Amino acid sequence: MNVSFPFEHVRVVLSRPSHPGNIGAAARAMKTMGLSRLWLVSPSAFPNPVAEARAHGAADVLATAQKVDTLQEALAGTVFSAALTARRRDLSLPRADPRAAAAELVAWGGQGEVALVFGNETSGLTNQELALCARPVTIPANPAYSSLNLGAAVQLMCYELRLAATRPNGPAAFPEAPPNLATHDEIEGFFEHLESSIVASGFLDAAQPRRLMAKLRRLFGRTRLEKEEIAILRGILASFKDNLPR
Amino acid sequence: MNVSFPFEHVRVVLSRPSHPGNIGAAARAMKTMGLSRLWLVSPSAFPNPVAEARAHGAADVLATAQKVDTLQEALAGTVFSAALTARRRDLSLPRADPRAAAAELVAWGGQGEVALVFGNETSGLTNQELALCARPVTIPANPAYSSLNLGAAVQLMCYELRLAATRPNGPAAFPEAPPNLATHDEIEGFFEHLESSIVASGFLDAAQPRRLMAKLRRLFGRTRLEKEEIAILRGILASFKDNLPR
Repeated sequence: MNVSFPFEHVRVVLSRPSHPGNIGAAARAMKTMGLSRLWLVSPSAFPNPVAEARAHGAADVLATAQKVDTLQEALAGTVFSAALTARRRDLSLPRADPRAAAAELVAWGGQGEVALVFGNETSGLTNQELALCARPVTIPANPAYSSLNLGAAVQLMCYELRLAATRPNGPAAFPEAPPNLATHDEIEGFFEHLESSIVASGFLDAAQPRRLMAKLRRLFGRTRLEKEEIAILRGILASFKDNLPR
Repeated sequence: MNVSFPFEHVRVVLSRPSHPGNIGAAARAMKTMGLSRLWLVSPSAFPNPVAEARAHGAADVLATAQKVDTLQEALAGTVFSAALTARRRDLSLPRADPRAAAAELVAWGGQGEVALVFGNETSGLTNQELALCARPVTIPANPAYSSLNLGAAVQLMCYELRLAATRPNGPAAFPEAPPNLATHDEIEGFFEHLESSIVASGFLDAAQPRRLMAKLRRLFGRTRLEKEEIAILRGILASFKDNLPR
């Protein structure tokens, strides 16, 4: 894991946000993904108690937010910027999806400051604003209803950025070494116990075993049984066996 | 593009949501990604005008939401479920990240109904609720602040689901769901049978159950039981029970 990605190189820029609640939601979304630098271009209301309430534990992101008048100011000093747009207009730049844009932001973010730019809730980014940014980004969405909430869009982009920053080699599984796995011998002991128990109960006909034990081995073979589980299963078998005819 | 993925097979289940605004945000997030089937387990307030305001253009999702009392009811009839959990507790089931979980949901969703389950805003899902679900999912987040807003988490998961459903050749290529898997109802039927059997055998003291059934659920939860295996296991239980004192 590339723990050294400089998350502080990423500016999240909201241009002309109308609703302070969305500013708070954006701050919270950013912080959950390790981002902290919020820039606000001509917000209609900021600071604002509604923003603070929605920010939840991310008040620090709001407290350090930069408020500027133009997108130009928010982009000053950056080496790359990605701008969200839902519009189907003719864009001369190739459009990226969130994953591809996140990879670009991470690649550039190693070299300098980068910006992730979101437009107004109702009208989005203007053509002039889009023209200032290096990469238009469109979130894949339901063609019949593509209106993501601003905070939700920020969450999704920051999530992709975090994935790209921490997993350059693609989606990682969470391989956790299971603790206390049963040994081969313990598992074999369980199967012997199981087999003798179901022979005694009459479920398995030793003269016509068919593939029953093979099927049970296949079932339990998928679980990677733990020591404690073997003990429970054998305890159950013993409890039944006590009641069987000898 | 696999346009034929049956998005209507996906239930989004919110268990005990406290804030109606989050229900509305979840509905909007779902609809932007093409999902429509919202299930609410004991919501604190629903229907509610705050939910409707936050749903924006997704009032139809709220209007058709199913309201039930327990997570069991919301999962009845499903063939697979993924449950969001931020907790670092010891889970023996392999945990998935959103991308891997989305691929699983899509693989299973081709065969029947699947559920994407979210817990209460403050407390998340209980251990009992998690034990009912096939796959725990953890969203990668900032270890210092991993508290995603519920609506934002729904947005992110629905986005990954849409990507997985429409881009089968993307980075999250996945094994196809094995055939002949037992349904949620069949698995629950087995657990009831198992529990009553080991109570009858004396192994489980109904007055002092400890965590025994939870441990057994954990064990079998890892196996993804098949229909035939359920039949074998229940046959074994029946063979023992025949010999128990009535």
